[in-house]
Formats: sequence, C-alpha cells, structure tokens
Amino acid sequence: MLNRVRSAVAHLVSSGGAPPSRPKSPDLPNATSAPPAAPPQAPRSPPARAGSGGAAPARTVEARASFSRPTFLQLSPGGLRRADDHAGRAVQSPPDTGRHLPWSTGYAEVINAGKSRHNEDQACCEVVYVEGRRSVSGAPREPSRGQGLCFYYWGLFDGHAGGGAAEMASRLLHRHIREQLKDLVEILQDPLPPPLCLPSTPGAPGSSDSSQLVGPQSCWSSQKEVTHESLVVGAIENAFQLMDEQMARERRGHQVEGGCCALVVVYLLGKVYVANAGDSRAIIVRNGEIIPMSREFTPETERQRLQLLGFLKPELLGGEFTHLEFPRRVQPKELGQRMLYRDQNMTGWAYKKIELEDLRFPLVCGEGKKARVMATIGVTRGLGDHNLRVCSSTLPIKPFLSCFPEVRVYDLTQYEHCPDDVLVLGTDGLWDVTSDCEVAATVDRVLSAYEPNDPSRYTALAQALVLGARGTPRDRGWRLPNNKLGSGDDISVFVIPLGGPGSYS
Amino acid sequence: MLNRVRSAVAHLVSSGGAPPSRPKSPDLPNATSAPPAAPPQAPRSPPARAGSGGAAPARTVEARASFSRPTFLQLSPGGLRRADDHAGRAVQSPPDTGRHLPWSTGYAEVINAGKSRHNEDQACCEVVYVEGRRSVSGAPREPSRGQGLCFYYWGLFDGHAGGGAAEMASRLLHRHIREQLKDLVEILQDPLPPPLCLPSTPGAPGSSDSSQLVGPQSCWSSQKEVTHESLVVGAIENAFQLMDEQMARERRGHQVEGGCCALVVVYLLGKVYVANAGDSRAIIVRNGEIIPMSREFTPETERQRLQLLGFLKPELLGGEFTHLEFPRRVQPKELGQRMLYRDQNMTGWAYKKIELEDLRFPLVCGEGKKARVMATIGVTRGLGDHNLRVCSSTLPIKPFLSCFPEVRVYDLTQYEHCPDDVLVLGTDGLWDVTSDCEVAATVDRVLSAYEPNDPSRYTALAQALVLGARGTPRDRGWRLPNNKLGSGDDISVFVIPLGGPGSYS
Repeated sequence: MLNRVRSAVAHLVSSGGAPPSRPKSPDLPNATSAPPAAPPQAPRSPPARAGSGGAAPARTVEARASFSRPTFLQLSPGGLRRADDHAGRAVQSPPDTGRHLPWSTGYAEVINAGKSRHNEDQACCEVVYVEGRRSVSGAPREPSRGQGLCFYYWGLFDGHAGGGAAEMASRLLHRHIREQLKDLVEILQDPLPPPLCLPSTPGAPGSSDSSQLVGPQSCWSSQKEVTHESLVVGAIENAFQLMDEQMARERRGHQVEGGCCALVVVYLLGKVYVANAGDSRAIIVRNGEIIPMSREFTPETERQRLQLLGFLKPELLGGEFTHLEFPRRVQPKELGQRMLYRDQNMTGWAYKKIELEDLRFPLVCGEGKKARVMATIGVTRGLGDHNLRVCSSTLPIKPFLSCFPEVRVYDLTQYEHCPDDVLVLGTDGLWDVTSDCEVAATVDRVLSAYEPNDPSRYTALAQALVLGARGTPRDRGWRLPNNKLGSGDDISVFVIPLGGPGSYS
Repeated sequence: MLNRVRSAVAHLVSSGGAPPSRPKSPDLPNATSAPPAAPPQAPRSPPARAGSGGAAPARTVEARASFSRPTFLQLSPGGLRRADDHAGRAVQSPPDTGRHLPWSTGYAEVINAGKSRHNEDQACCEVVYVEGRRSVSGAPREPSRGQGLCFYYWGLFDGHAGGGAAEMASRLLHRHIREQLKDLVEILQDPLPPPLCLPSTPGAPGSSDSSQLVGPQSCWSSQKEVTHESLVVGAIENAFQLMDEQMARERRGHQVEGGCCALVVVYLLGKVYVANAGDSRAIIVRNGEIIPMSREFTPETERQRLQLLGFLKPELLGGEFTHLEFPRRVQPKELGQRMLYRDQNMTGWAYKKIELEDLRFPLVCGEGKKARVMATIGVTRGLGDHNLRVCSSTLPIKPFLSCFPEVRVYDLTQYEHCPDDVLVLGTDGLWDVTSDCEVAATVDRVLSAYEPNDPSRYTALAQALVLGARGTPRDRGWRLPNNKLGSGDDISVFVIPLGGPGSYS
C-alpha cells in the first residue's frame, strides 16, 4: 500500500510541469533599500542536482537549480534530494551537531504530497545587528553612544504559485526590517518618548543643534504621545511594504514567481512582535494556556474589506465580478427572484431582487479552505503576486491583496516563563489539521518527556507537530491516527522557547 | 452657589440663538417604506409653551413647538418645561402610576448644562407587532399560519447639531425594522434553514408551486448556510440604512436637523440584538460580571476606515485635508524635516519627510473626546448629517460617516437570569464620566435595596445612574462626589431587566 502511494505520488510529481527556468533571485535589496555594507550572505544549502543516474534534460536541471531549503538545515545534495521527495515526505530539522538555532529554537518541515513541484514554504532564523544610521540630532555618532541594537528574528513564508516570492522574502525581509530600525537605534534606547519631528539633513552643518530637534516638550498641547513599541510596529509594517515593492520592481528581471504568506517574529528590547500577513498562525502556549498571537487573513475574514474596495473602485472588478456576496452562484433563470445577499456594510443577510449584474461572478465566494478572491486565491494578505491575474482574463488580483501584516506585541518581561512555555509558528499545513488545543497537548506531552535543560526538546516538539499533521501513508493517502486525512500541504513549524532568552546568545 | 450656577446657565441658554423654526417632522415613513396600514402614532408629550407670563415672540414659540420628549414620560406642559430647564437639570422618568414600560424597563434622562438649547437625546420603547407580508412561497396566507411576530424594542438617539434627526429616528426607526421583518415572519418561525431564493411575484398564478422555491436542498453543494439570526441582523442593518435614506430625502422639506447616534435593542424569538452606530454604549451586568454589548465608533476607533476612504477617494478631501495622520499639526517651517505619521495601513508609527501636501489639515486629528473627522465631528457612525459640511467650506462630511450599526447578539435562553441581571444602555453623557465597573457597582447597590419583584427598582437604578453622571451643582459646575466635573451633556439611560421577559407583556 505504501509503495502504491509512493508510486502514485511520484507519478503525479514527475508528470507535473516543471516551473520555467529562472536565474536565482538576487541576494540583496536594491540600492535604495540595501544597507550600504551588507554582511555577506551565508551560503544556502547547495542546489539539488537532477535525479539519479546520468544527464537529466537541461530544463529540469535549471528548474531544480532554483530550488533551495533554509540554510540552517545544512542539507547536503543528497539531503536536499530527500527533502524534495514527495513520496517519502521525510521530516527535516537542523542537524543535531551541538550548534543550535538562537534561543535553542526548534524547527521541522516536510514537503507536500505532490501539490507543487517543490516545498514552497521557506524559513529564516537570524540574529540581526542594527547599527544606527546617525544620531537622533543628526550629529556625528559619538563612539560611546554608538551601541547598536540586536534583534532576534524568525520567519515562515508559505509560497503559492511558485516558490520565488517565499524564497526572496526569506532572504531579505529581515534586512528590510533592519533598514527601518536603523533610524531608531538611539530613540529606542532613550527612555524619553520618541521625538515627533527630526531634522532633515543628518550631519549637515548646524543640524547637530539640538534646538532643531522638535521634541514633545516644545510642541502643541494637543500632540499625541507615541510609544517606542509603536515605532517598532511601524518599522515592521513598512518593511513588509518595502519588501513587496522590491518584489514588484524585480519581478521581471528575476522572475519572482507567485506570492507568499509571511509570519514573522521579532524579539527586541524585551518584547516579542508577531507580524502576520496570510494564513499561517502563531500561538503562545504558556503553562498550558493558549494565547493567540495572530489571526488569519482570508477571503472570509477580510470579506468586508474586499467588498468595500470593489464597491469604491468598481473598475477593479472589470465588469466580470460583483462586489455583492451571495450564498451560492446566481443562475440566469433566477433573474427577478429574490435571493439572499450581503454587501460590504453588512454582517447579516437579506433578500434582494436579482438583477442582471448580480449574475456576475462574486468577488468573494466559497467557504473555509475553498473561499477565494475572484475565484482564484485563498489568502488576502502576503507578499508578491504582482503578476497574478484572474484565470482566462487579464484582470489583476493584486489590488485586492494587502502586503501589510497585523502586528501583535507580547511583553516577555511581564511574566516569568518556564522552559515549557513556547511560541509555536506554523504554516497552514499544520493548522489545517491541528487545533490550537491539540498543539498545546503535544507541547505538554513532548516537552515533559525531555529534561528541561535539554535544548533538543524544542526540535523534537517541532518534529512531533509536523509528523502529527502529516500522518503516515495508509489507504491511498497520508492519514492521521484517527484515519482522517493528514495535511498534503507543505508543513513548517518553529518552536520558540520563551523561558530563558537571556541564557541563549 | 447653586443660584449662581443656575443664573449663569440660564443666561447662557437664553442668549444662545434659537434654532430656525420648522414644522414637526412627518410622522410616517414615505410610501415606499411605510406599512400600508400603520397604526396611529401615540401622541407625544404636548409641545412646551413659551416661558411664563404673556406673549413670547412668535419665533420662540415656533422653535419651542418643535421640542418634544419621549411619549412614555407623559409630560404635562409644566413637566416639559422642567425637563427643558438647563439650570435645574431635574432627572426625568416615566410616572410611577402602576403602568410600567415593557419588561418593567427603567428609564431616566436629564438635559445638558447649556451645551445645546434643548435635550438632543431621544428615546423610544415599544412593543412592535409584525404582520407577515406574504407566505414564503408566495401563496395567499392561510389563516392558521397567519401568526405574526412580536418584537420588543428600545432605542436611544443622541442628537448633534440639532434635535431633528434624533427625534425622527426615535419615531420611525422601529417601523423600518418592522418593514424589514415583514418578509421574514414565516421564515423565522420555520425551524428549517432560510431558503436562499424566493419567488419574484408573491400570489401570482403558479407561484404557490413550492418547486419554485429554491431551497437549500436543490442548490449547489457549495452554498452557504444562512442562519435565522443573521437574517434579523441583516434586517436591522438595512433598516438603519433606509432610515438614513429617508432623512436624506426629507431633509429639505422638513428640515431634519443635524444627525444622531443610534443605539437600538431588539428582542425577538429568544435573542437580544444590540445595534450600535455612534458613541452610545450597552453593557450587560450579569451576576456582577460585565459583558460589553457594543463598541463606540469614533474618529479614533475608525481611523483606518476613514483614512482608507480618503486614500481611495482623494476627491473627498477636496485638497484641504490629508489622509495621513500626524501626532500634531505640521508647521510650514518643518517642511523637509521628518515627522512621525501613520497611513491607512499602519497601526504603528514611522518617520516621513514632510512634503507640501502634509501641511494640509489631517482628516483625523485629536484624541479621546476631542478627536474629530475633518476638524468637525466626533462620531463616525449614525443617522442624518446629510447637510454637515466642514466649517467655512462646502466640503461634505457625510461620505466619511457610516449609517451602519454593529449588531451583537445575546441569546437569552442560554443562561438563567436572575432579577438583578440587566442590560444598561446609555448615551455618552453617562459613559464619559462613568466606567463599566462603576455602573456594575451601582447596579448592585441600587437593586439590592429593593425587593426583587418591585418593578420600580429598574427606574430607580436608571435614575441613580443619571444622577451619578450629572452630579450636583457646586464650585461653578456640576460636580461628582470626588469633586471631578460631572457630565454637562444630555444623559439618557435605559435599564432592561433580563431576568424574566416572559412574565411581562
């Protein structure tokens, strides 16, 4: 039976069209957003070679050459082939060589069951140093005040319609965040509220005069006080936008394929920032309690935003779609009858008389995992998708997608965490078949089987979560112990321990 | 001291310009929305006569004639004058004559301290019978199935820039709700899911054929199931919109002045629907626990919706406003400097270089009670305001205001309520100076002083809440026991007991 599944899946994969060949995406943001002296990029796992035995067609070689997995997996060419095997679906984790990810983070991933040619999830885990661009006042930086900032960074990127966007985001998004934070290095370390206004020309003659610095003191009484935290949130939000703009600029030259959901965690100065754009999910499991740290952005959860946009900008619907929602497709013979509908202002339903334009396809349709924008895409936030168009049409879908994340903040200093308190990040491959409560139960079960100070326990937990969502091959599919189908999607999981960041560095 | 306050307030009131005279707003919705046979409207409290002693100028008489208080207060001309007295600010409640409001609802109100000429709050409490318009299938109604529906209704309307909109809404909004429910009478009483599609021509030959009724059974497998509850929500949402459209149509002929916030409760078939558009608030206090039943819609809470609209439709900003938010007004001398800002996509703040168009006035500015849209209005949802324009400009503000409420549903059957469990509705005059917890404490204190079956306890509670928010005249103002200023606004409160609706009818 296992062999039959493997053979069926292998056939499916080998018969699927290879994506068009493309050069590797550029490694650095362009001049406007790149740091002047970016540290050299650590090499990724080597690109996989074409399958065993002799010369594969050049087209396949090129396509495969574009495939990569996260650097920290340290995959050999053979390991990369195994990670790319839809039939075996071996769970991948960083090697247990004594050198752990920051904070002893656990990670595991598995490729899909044939849904796409490669694993379109990508992941990144980095410690990023931010050197201040200049002093707040514009004065040359004094050496004594020159301490930069460090942030810890984790990112999961779930690609669709190609792996290019996810791969690019996994390499560059944290650099965009670093760029945004450069101006804030001093401000964030100053206990005073952030200045509302900064001088224009850093380092220019006279600009070191601190009287030019319009601080809260000198302003109108009606000014708002802005927190340090909200500056970090704003930096992350703008970094997402700049990443998306970079993809738009470079999509022609480098063929940034498709788009990706992005779920990102930044730890900075005692606080955890969880930024989510898409349908991945983050939860904290703390002393058995579940604390949601993100919500999903889908055609269902963002229905009203999408409908409002279609209503305000009907030209975006191209005469092909209606911004109204109906509980099912309206049929021509129903013209003049009254059908239930919702518009952009409604959460309830009401009846309306069917008119000719109601026969257009609805902008938002379907339920759950089948919900779609313009009958095409099932997530409404993320990066990329600049070329995405409605099937058999030239109508662009990107205007309805948002690259902006929702950022939630968790103050690590407000609670004394134990080694079993973790932040779990997963792509939808995990959450489609695993509830928050099941994850919390697995956290309890796996971590209690390890010594609290055993750093490998978090990787074991990530592996258990991935295995629990993948299942085992049985009865023509990957099945869970309850015999329901496991996830056939790519599955990627980070487990970030909250109980002692200070002890890891 | 009291006299000095009274005299100062009286002077303020008498010196304020009287609103332009206008005929009383029409009593019924127009032909398209009015029921064919609306029951005659119960007479309101008689209009107040002009002040004591002889012939007041005709202008004043006409202006006063337009002033009314809720019918259920049963105010005599003298009572109406007292209710209209800014100096005394006597708390008004229905007379204790043994005939109580439905459900023994408690009510109290007090006029403002001179903020506007009259009390611009209005209230309504009704039992509304809905006769079905036709059978679902379009067939003539069988007598046996002809039972209509009854709903209980409470409404608070906080007017601004005139009392016309609040007064009109208090007379007509429940009728719009009734109209919307007429088509649903049979559907809501049928345990089957609502049909997605209804025939077009009720009562037409052949339309009684139930095969024309496209029910869930015969539809595509991908149809959504719509609940009865969501139909009621949709009916209330559409009733708000139709009420607003009626105000727009009739604003010229009948001078519907200003606008109003609307907070409405509908009890129907075991469920309480709380619909809020504006900055009034509803909470349930149940066994001492606070359950929020609404949220406020203000320039702060709706910042991103407003900014998005200004961004997508810049013509609505008329070149006078910028959709960007700044923590304070940008000054011309700051051109080229970098200031904190937020756009429609951001919850955090970031720095941007000040450009010429950033010198425009921000669409949203200010904080808390001082927050304003276009420097003019402090609420972002409600009814009316069709004539509202930016001060010293012709730019209309209405496009930024929404007439749609947020509707929350509370299932009364899911919990066994005791006589001390209440739903409290209040205009912002209450909530500006009273926290939810303080209200809950007053609920406990007042109700425990009365027998559980004493129906006057809820009016006593409403009075205590209004008095607690108004305070007493002391030190040149209305002050609370802690010496802070009480609310100088109109204050209106409903207290709806949840512990035994079945026993009142």
